[in-house]
Amino acid sequence: MAEPARSLGTGLGAGSPGCTGSLPGVTFNDQARAAKQASVTLGTLTRAAKDAALHAMADALADAEAAVLEANRRDVDRARESGTSDALIDRLRLNPQRVDGMVGGLRDLARLADPVGDVMRGWTNANGVQVRQVRVPFGVVGIIYEARPNVTADAAGICLKSGNAALLRGSSSALESNLAVVAALRAGLQGVGLPSDAVQLVEGGREVTEQMMAARGLVDVLIPRGGAGLINAVVEGSKVPVIETGTGNCHIFVDATADQAMALDILLNAKVQRPSVCNAAETLLVHRAIADEFLPKALAALAGQGVTVHGTDAVRAHSELVVAAGPDEFDDEYLSLDIAADVVDSVGAAIEHIRAHTTGHSETIVTNDRISADRFVAEVDAAAVLVNASSRFVDGGEFGFGAEIGISTQKLHARGPMGLAEMTSSKYVVTGAGQIRP
Amino acid sequence: MAEPARSLGTGLGAGSPGCTGSLPGVTFNDQARAAKQASVTLGTLTRAAKDAALHAMADALADAEAAVLEANRRDVDRARESGTSDALIDRLRLNPQRVDGMVGGLRDLARLADPVGDVMRGWTNANGVQVRQVRVPFGVVGIIYEARPNVTADAAGICLKSGNAALLRGSSSALESNLAVVAALRAGLQGVGLPSDAVQLVEGGREVTEQMMAARGLVDVLIPRGGAGLINAVVEGSKVPVIETGTGNCHIFVDATADQAMALDILLNAKVQRPSVCNAAETLLVHRAIADEFLPKALAALAGQGVTVHGTDAVRAHSELVVAAGPDEFDDEYLSLDIAADVVDSVGAAIEHIRAHTTGHSETIVTNDRISADRFVAEVDAAAVLVNASSRFVDGGEFGFGAEIGISTQKLHARGPMGLAEMTSSKYVVTGAGQIRP
Repeated sequence: MAEPARSLGTGLGAGSPGCTGSLPGVTFNDQARAAKQASVTLGTLTRAAKDAALHAMADALADAEAAVLEANRRDVDRARESGTSDALIDRLRLNPQRVDGMVGGLRDLARLADPVGDVMRGWTNANGVQVRQVRVPFGVVGIIYEARPNVTADAAGICLKSGNAALLRGSSSALESNLAVVAALRAGLQGVGLPSDAVQLVEGGREVTEQMMAARGLVDVLIPRGGAGLINAVVEGSKVPVIETGTGNCHIFVDATADQAMALDILLNAKVQRPSVCNAAETLLVHRAIADEFLPKALAALAGQGVTVHGTDAVRAHSELVVAAGPDEFDDEYLSLDIAADVVDSVGAAIEHIRAHTTGHSETIVTNDRISADRFVAEVDAAAVLVNASSRFVDGGEFGFGAEIGISTQKLHARGPMGLAEMTSSKYVVTGAGQIRP
Repeated sequence: MAEPARSLGTGLGAGSPGCTGSLPGVTFNDQARAAKQASVTLGTLTRAAKDAALHAMADALADAEAAVLEANRRDVDRARESGTSDALIDRLRLNPQRVDGMVGGLRDLARLADPVGDVMRGWTNANGVQVRQVRVPFGVVGIIYEARPNVTADAAGICLKSGNAALLRGSSSALESNLAVVAALRAGLQGVGLPSDAVQLVEGGREVTEQMMAARGLVDVLIPRGGAGLINAVVEGSKVPVIETGTGNCHIFVDATADQAMALDILLNAKVQRPSVCNAAETLLVHRAIADEFLPKALAALAGQGVTVHGTDAVRAHSELVVAAGPDEFDDEYLSLDIAADVVDSVGAAIEHIRAHTTGHSETIVTNDRISADRFVAEVDAAAVLVNASSRFVDGGEFGFGAEIGISTQKLHARGPMGLAEMTSSKYVVTGAGQIRP
C-alpha cells in the first residue's frame, strides 16, 4: 500500500503534533504514550472546556469539507479499481450531507451531560470516613473499525466528551478520508489549546492491530466495531480489556396467545425497517398452536416486502416460497432481506432454541400471556429482552443516550447500547480526618 | 501427582452429580457445560431459595468438619514433605476455627441483600415503550486461586448468592482440602434440591487452566486471585473476559501541610497493621519542605515497628538504618515489613512518581491543603484515592459490602472492592404494546 499520509503533509518535527498523530518512525507505542499523556489533561477538563473543544472540532471539520471530500474521492477511486462491491463503496463514500452529519454529531455531543464526575454512590462509615464512587474516564480508548469514515468523527467525539483519548484504527480502504477527518479534528483541539494527541489515527498493517491488542497498561480498553470476524479476532487476541460490540442473531418468538396483527407488525418492522443492522430480526419462531393460522399471513407479508424465508419443513409446509434452511442457517446473521424460521412446541422450546443460537443481543417475545412473558424475560440470556415491541428499539438513540459507541454483547462492564456513561470507569474517593484501621 | 480425587469415592455413574463435579473421563468443557446448565436454574432462584441453599451448604460443611480437617492434614503433610515454606503451610492449614469461619461466612452471605433483580434504572420512552435495566447473574464464573482452602467456600458462597455457577480452580497443594470442602457444599445443594453442578472443583494440570481461559461462551468471566504471576498469566492468556484482582503497590504521600502526627499514624497503620495484604502501604513519599522534620520521626517509628526502609539518598541522609533502594525497588509489592521511601519536590512530583509506579490499587495523600488534595484525587489514576485516611480501609468489609471476592484493579466493569453487586451483569427489559420503529 502507498503511504498517502506522507503526501498530506504530516508534520515532522519531534514533538510536533502533526496532522494525524502518526509520524514517520513513530511507533504505535509512541502514539499510545502520547495518548496517555493527553488523557491526563482530558481527565480533568470541565464540561465547558470539552464542549468548546467539540464545537472547535466541528468548526474545523466543516472548514475542511472540501479536503475531506477530495480525500474520500481518492479512497473511493482506489476501492473501485480494486473491485470493491457497490454496497461497501456506499459505506465508504462521503458527500456534503454525510460530512454535515459528522459535524452535527459533534455539536450534538456538546449538548449532552458530562458523565465524568457523576457521584454514582456514596456513604459515610461508622468511623466518619466518607466514601464516594465517582465516574472517571477510562484514559485511552482504542477503537478498531471498518470502512465507514463517519465513525472516525463519531468515535473521536464520544471519547472526547467522556474524557478519553482516542486511538482510532480505521480500515485501510478509508485511510485518506480518515487522515483528512483526523487532521481537522486535531486542528480543532489545538485551536482551543488542548493536546491534539487526544485524537490520533493509527496507521499500518496487521502488525499494528497486534500491537494495539498487546498494549496492556498503555491502552485501557479496546472496542472493535465491525463484522464478526474482526470482533472475534480482537476478543480472542487482545491482552487489553475488550468491550465486544455485537453481532445480533436476533429472534422473534410469536407465542400461542400473541395478538397476531401486532406480531406481524413487529416482525415486519424488525426484519425490514433496516435489515443491515445488528438489532434487526434474523429468526422467526412460531408457537405450533397458531402456526397454521399465523404462518400463511406472515409468509405472505414477508414475501410482499421482498424477504426470503429460510424455513424448516414445518414452515415450508405453509408456502412454496420458503427456501429450505441449511444446517447452520439458524446461527448466523443475514443482515439482508432474509429470515430463518421454525415452529416450536412451547415457550420453553423457544427459549431452548434461542439459548442454542443466540449471540446475546436482542430477543423478542410477542405474547398476551404474563407467565410466558415473565419466563421469557427471566430465562433468555441477552443484552435486551423485549415483550411486544420491535427489537429495532434496542439502540442508544432510542434509549435516549444521545450518542452510541456500539451495542455491547458481553456481560462485563456494559451490556446493551453504550452511551457516554458506559465509556467511563469509576474511582473510589475516600476522605477522612486521620482515621486508621483498628 | 497422585489422583486423590479417586480415593475419596467420587461418583462414577454418567449423570451422577459425584462429590466434586469432576469425574474420570469428564473434560473441563463437560464441567463448564454442566455449570452453564446449572446457572439457568440459579439465575431464576428467589433470594429465599438461595439463602436456604447457603444455610444447607453451611450445615453440610459443619457436618464434614472432621473429613475436611483430615483431608487438609494430608495436604499439609504433602506440602511439608516437598519442602514448602512455613508461611505457605500456614495459609494452607485449616483448623476447627478456620472451618467455623468458612461455615459462618456462608451464613453471613444469607443475611445480605440479593443483588439479582435490582432495577438499576428505568424510564418510559415517548412512544410508551418501557425500558428497565435489571441486574442479572453473569452465568458461569471461573475462579483461579492459590493455596488457601477457605477461598473455596467463600467463592462458592458469593457465586451462589449472586446467582452464578462457580468453577473453582484451586491450587494442587490444597487439592484434598478443596475436594472435601466442595463435596460438602455440593451435598448441601443437593439436600435442598438444587443442581450440585452449581459448585464444581476443576482439577488437573496447567492444561486445564488453559482450557478455562479458552472457554469463551461457556465461562462468562474469569477471576484470578493470587500473586502477580498468576494474575498476569490469566489476564494475558484468556479469551474469556477477566476481572483483574489486584496487586497493590500502594503509596502514601505526606504533603508539606500534613498534620505530621496524623501522617505518622496513617503511615504506621497502612504499613504495619497487616503487611501481607494488597491495600498495605509499600512506598512513602515525603514533601521536601517537611522532610527534615518528618523523616527522622517517621524512620524512627518505622524502625520501632520492625520495618526496614529502602530509601534514596535523600532518605538515607536521615538515618543509618535506611537501606539503599535498588533500581526496581519502587515497582514491586513487598507484602512484608519493608517500605520504599523517597523525597519529592511537590504534589505534582508525587503524582508523577505514583503514575510511573502505581498498580492502580489505593493511593493516599496526607495533607491539610484543599488544592493539593483535590489535585491528587483528580490526577491519580487508581481504584481508590484516599485523603487523610489509611489505605487499609479499601476493603469490601470496611466498605460495608458484607462479602468480597477480591479488589479489582482494572477499569472495566468493577474497580475497587467487589461485593455481590459487582458479581452481576445487567439486562435491558423492554416492554411495549406493539410499538414499532417508524
